[in-house]
Amino acid sequence: MNQDLKNDRFLRALRREPTDTTPIWVMRQAGRYLPEYRATRARAGSFMALAQHPELACEVTLQPLERFDLDAAILFSDILTVPDAMGLGLSFAAGEGPQFARPVRNAADIDRLGVPDMEGELRYVTDAVRLIRRELQGRVPLIGFSGSPWTLACYMVEGQGSRDFATLKAMCWNEPALAHRLLDVLARSVAQYLAAQAVAGAQALMIFDTWGGLLGPAPFREFSLRYMAQVVDTLKTNAHARELPVILFSKGAGMHLPTMADTGCAALGVDWTIDLDQARRAVAGKVALQGNLDPAVLRSNPDTIRRETRAVLDSYGNHPGHVFNLGHGITPEVDPEHVKVLVDEVHSYGRTLRMT
Amino acid sequence: MNQDLKNDRFLRALRREPTDTTPIWVMRQAGRYLPEYRATRARAGSFMALAQHPELACEVTLQPLERFDLDAAILFSDILTVPDAMGLGLSFAAGEGPQFARPVRNAADIDRLGVPDMEGELRYVTDAVRLIRRELQGRVPLIGFSGSPWTLACYMVEGQGSRDFATLKAMCWNEPALAHRLLDVLARSVAQYLAAQAVAGAQALMIFDTWGGLLGPAPFREFSLRYMAQVVDTLKTNAHARELPVILFSKGAGMHLPTMADTGCAALGVDWTIDLDQARRAVAGKVALQGNLDPAVLRSNPDTIRRETRAVLDSYGNHPGHVFNLGHGITPEVDPEHVKVLVDEVHSYGRTLRMT
Repeated sequence: MNQDLKNDRFLRALRREPTDTTPIWVMRQAGRYLPEYRATRARAGSFMALAQHPELACEVTLQPLERFDLDAAILFSDILTVPDAMGLGLSFAAGEGPQFARPVRNAADIDRLGVPDMEGELRYVTDAVRLIRRELQGRVPLIGFSGSPWTLACYMVEGQGSRDFATLKAMCWNEPALAHRLLDVLARSVAQYLAAQAVAGAQALMIFDTWGGLLGPAPFREFSLRYMAQVVDTLKTNAHARELPVILFSKGAGMHLPTMADTGCAALGVDWTIDLDQARRAVAGKVALQGNLDPAVLRSNPDTIRRETRAVLDSYGNHPGHVFNLGHGITPEVDPEHVKVLVDEVHSYGRTLRMT
Repeated sequence: MNQDLKNDRFLRALRREPTDTTPIWVMRQAGRYLPEYRATRARAGSFMALAQHPELACEVTLQPLERFDLDAAILFSDILTVPDAMGLGLSFAAGEGPQFARPVRNAADIDRLGVPDMEGELRYVTDAVRLIRRELQGRVPLIGFSGSPWTLACYMVEGQGSRDFATLKAMCWNEPALAHRLLDVLARSVAQYLAAQAVAGAQALMIFDTWGGLLGPAPFREFSLRYMAQVVDTLKTNAHARELPVILFSKGAGMHLPTMADTGCAALGVDWTIDLDQARRAVAGKVALQGNLDPAVLRSNPDTIRRETRAVLDSYGNHPGHVFNLGHGITPEVDPEHVKVLVDEVHSYGRTLRMT
């Protein structure tokens, strides 16, 4: 497999095999900091129209690869496509973040939820994956992704973004059986969704657990980690997905890396609040690591970007299994020229590092 | 000293001495969840008018003690009084959080900053402390507080709240000498401010480092922790303040507890993303711990509140040196009856725990 790939650094690093330099991609690399993205987004009319139109989704997925020497592409989509396909009605009000027209509030709402049809409501996603794979022509691998069951549930129960997602937390404490029913149908849906992306041509899979870090240690294991592990387990039973590396990323979960590394995933995403040498010791060689430059560094100047980039590379050191990334998504204010500085520094210093 | 105190559980716990039960106070206990607070706040006209009027500040400081069996009072004020007194013009737009009319942006702005006059611009704070001490009549000790130098700098440079405070971060990376000059004048000001509160009658001091957790490990030590340590060191040279326990609280800094415990502070505040048994091992008996119930628990039901409260107490175990608190400030939606459930459960289960 992947024999047609011209650049397999990213997949080799995820398998903790040696590479000529450190591979890099950037969370939200197809995004608002790029003028060409903003132009396509304006043509589409809305964020969801852009995500649901395979040709346009393909176009914005490829845009950052034209500018920068990135080692992976990531499907342009949203983490909340699965609950939207479950009938909750996702929209993005300007500057307001995601909103669901029909949030999930009680047992009846949860009982109504079923695993969406991957070739029905979610066909636009697999169509986009197929189209992007064709257009990539093996330049770099394509990453498919989903929100984690916990993170999907946060938005589904709250109906929108929140500082603390206390509505779902209260359900977990007061009616844990109900919360588990919701998380179980989400874990089954996310697993099928990621498997469908694998069948359509995704070459690695990532689960974004944006809000796992809002939980204390015991609830994190019970309500977030457990269902990511269920997704990974299910993917291992799928003929197409079982060979694909899975990356788990829980923001603010630096203290949970050892338990996360035991799920059977290939790699963990790491935010910038922990040093990579400490993270590497925490996972004891079980998984690769992806991260972890503070995204705010891209809003400083080129000299600082180079220096801080080298510090992240030095922190991981000359070991296999590092995929460079930011510790969180790139923000809209960033100058695209600064991303070029970052990508080029990772590749050039990554080569130097391997000579030490 | 403190011989006039009727309830010294809080101070004893900070010294890691045995107590009959676990003391509790609640961050932002004088706040919007209380209807009597909202009434006084309405009379004052604005948040800053309330904070700057000693009689009204005293009134709201004492309100939660009338309802609940709390073991400490905390001065009603804001973490940003020091930069306001430096001339930056603090205000709170409705629902918008703090704003400065004159943010700090460059070397000239920083050179203009001086340590404010504690008996001038900040006299309203020491007046409030003296008045509250008199009105408390020794019922419980009074906590004085300030924002940390880093957290003050975040707002001063950004001019308002922010997701990432990238403006100050960029200054730290691009012009570190400038950032250090700003943080140094803030550390000197915060130390004098806390010392003035000690002279006026505060019996413990707390430093709120709300945004320290936004920094990676090395910048946290260089730009946040270092200046909290400077404040603690300076307080040790003050005849009035040297005997007072200092509590440091950096939100999201669970991984930094060992280094924070070495500053000479008496206690560390801990948010809910780390278990207290793990935190206790991390600080190795050097300091007391304050925390760490998830504030969202107060939005569940009384049975859940009791159960989760006992879990926090069990996590610390039957050791001296625990002050119960939330892991962050109480939110406006909380039913005051739920706070009563919390306080009573801490005291009753805390007694049970000491018999094991």
